[in-house]
Amino acid sequence: MGGAMAARLLAAGHRLTVHTRSPEKARRLIAAGAEWAATPAAAARGAAATFIMVGHPADVEQVVFGTDGVLDGLAPGTLLIDHTTSSPELAERLAAAAVGRGAWSLDAPVSGGDRGAREGTLTVMVGGDPRARQALEVCWSAVAGRVVDCGPPGSGQRTKLVNQIAIASGMIGMCEALLFAHRAGLGLETTLTAIGGGAAGSWSLANLAPRILRGDLGPGFLVEHFIKDMRLALEECRRMSLRLPGLELAESLYRSLADRGMERLGTQALVLALAEHAGHAWPLPGERSPPDLPRSP
Amino acid sequence: MGGAMAARLLAAGHRLTVHTRSPEKARRLIAAGAEWAATPAAAARGAAATFIMVGHPADVEQVVFGTDGVLDGLAPGTLLIDHTTSSPELAERLAAAAVGRGAWSLDAPVSGGDRGAREGTLTVMVGGDPRARQALEVCWSAVAGRVVDCGPPGSGQRTKLVNQIAIASGMIGMCEALLFAHRAGLGLETTLTAIGGGAAGSWSLANLAPRILRGDLGPGFLVEHFIKDMRLALEECRRMSLRLPGLELAESLYRSLADRGMERLGTQALVLALAEHAGHAWPLPGERSPPDLPRSP
Repeated sequence: MGGAMAARLLAAGHRLTVHTRSPEKARRLIAAGAEWAATPAAAARGAAATFIMVGHPADVEQVVFGTDGVLDGLAPGTLLIDHTTSSPELAERLAAAAVGRGAWSLDAPVSGGDRGAREGTLTVMVGGDPRARQALEVCWSAVAGRVVDCGPPGSGQRTKLVNQIAIASGMIGMCEALLFAHRAGLGLETTLTAIGGGAAGSWSLANLAPRILRGDLGPGFLVEHFIKDMRLALEECRRMSLRLPGLELAESLYRSLADRGMERLGTQALVLALAEHAGHAWPLPGERSPPDLPRSP
Repeated sequence: MGGAMAARLLAAGHRLTVHTRSPEKARRLIAAGAEWAATPAAAARGAAATFIMVGHPADVEQVVFGTDGVLDGLAPGTLLIDHTTSSPELAERLAAAAVGRGAWSLDAPVSGGDRGAREGTLTVMVGGDPRARQALEVCWSAVAGRVVDCGPPGSGQRTKLVNQIAIASGMIGMCEALLFAHRAGLGLETTLTAIGGGAAGSWSLANLAPRILRGDLGPGFLVEHFIKDMRLALEECRRMSLRLPGLELAESLYRSLADRGMERLGTQALVLALAEHAGHAWPLPGERSPPDLPRSP
């Protein structure tokens, strides 16, 4: 997603210096006019705003606080923006470290996926000073359809975790609905038509259920990234002494997918974990899907 | 809902005879031109189509198979339509009984709620002979925005249960998201703005979450009716040897609401059950937002 967002910034006429941990990932950006920086510190040096988009909180820590990290290149009066979905507590530490340099930091995780990144329709959830956010309007207008000020540092991350918590149990509902319909011998397309427009309706049902029916369990959004996000949310829950049984159930089901080597499938692959749990044979990718089963006895 | 649907049939110019178990519920329909029948059999006698809309499968059984039940008045060549969300197995028995009278039966549960019934925008999920369904076009055009042929008898009920299964875990996700946001001190309206338009989006999030924020936990759709529907779905699961952990979790959480006397609240009151489970104090009456907690009569 970072690549797609950077490409949109370039296309909008911004000067861009990039560093990627796997250099080949920067090739297309460099061909499109970006400059290469050998380290995160070098990328930050001389930049008015430094954007980070990596995988895990540990990667953010490494990229910012590590040797030749962003912090070494961050000049006073500039901005540090972390687009990674990461830990709220780390966002607070980033903000404090930026202040220590006379700079500003914003946590700014996004929703909208690869497609939102390519089309510039992401939602950005921002934690940090609204004045810093306003200074970024000129950049975010190229990548985002919506930018929401969520509150002080960490609030962007917390809001993104709220988003993932709503998705987690919603995915269970969508997949269980398909499993029940399949087991009961209902026509799955007809069933989606019947239930999609009312109180059962959701983004998952409209967008991911049809992919499941086509036998397409590819990402979309990777199982392994969603597990990371749910674990961040569960960590926050522990910190706040909050128990969320739906989130716990979703994390355990997705973990069972990862344990079976399916962490590179899309999140809709949850249907396989639930089928396993339910004792129901769901057709795997490559098989005919949806199979017309005989009516259940 | 039966009353609102009947009123629309009357307003569309159909001749209507009504029987209600609580006679006062028919008063407005009679004032609007409906005839009164003293028994279900009397209501069915001479009718081209007999519609049932009651609470529970046991009520359907009583109204159809009981003394002076619909079956006693059902003439050959006429139609019996059950709009109640009820058991698929009972729908199959109704169909067989109707055939025994030379009549047709359709299971035809609806979604869209009170509002859909008043506005004539319900979705009707039909199990039974499509020719019988076509004969009803003239009636359903007055009450429904969409009529879906789901398959043989029982398929309408099964499709409605699929709908309720998708809702069940979706409600968990929506309420857990609000609880997390509240506990984390996020602005709840801002959070809904940030997460409502993307992959976390759902009918529940768009329609019920704002009611929760206003402190409105009234129905909408009653907790006790939703529990009935989830139990029908769980019965079907047992019959088909299918285990759905999200549905089981939702049923147990809603049961805990009913156990505390809150079965006459709307389904969004799930937030109270989850708050209890989470060990989080959700604002109760007289606090931040005042949900009324009427006890069941």
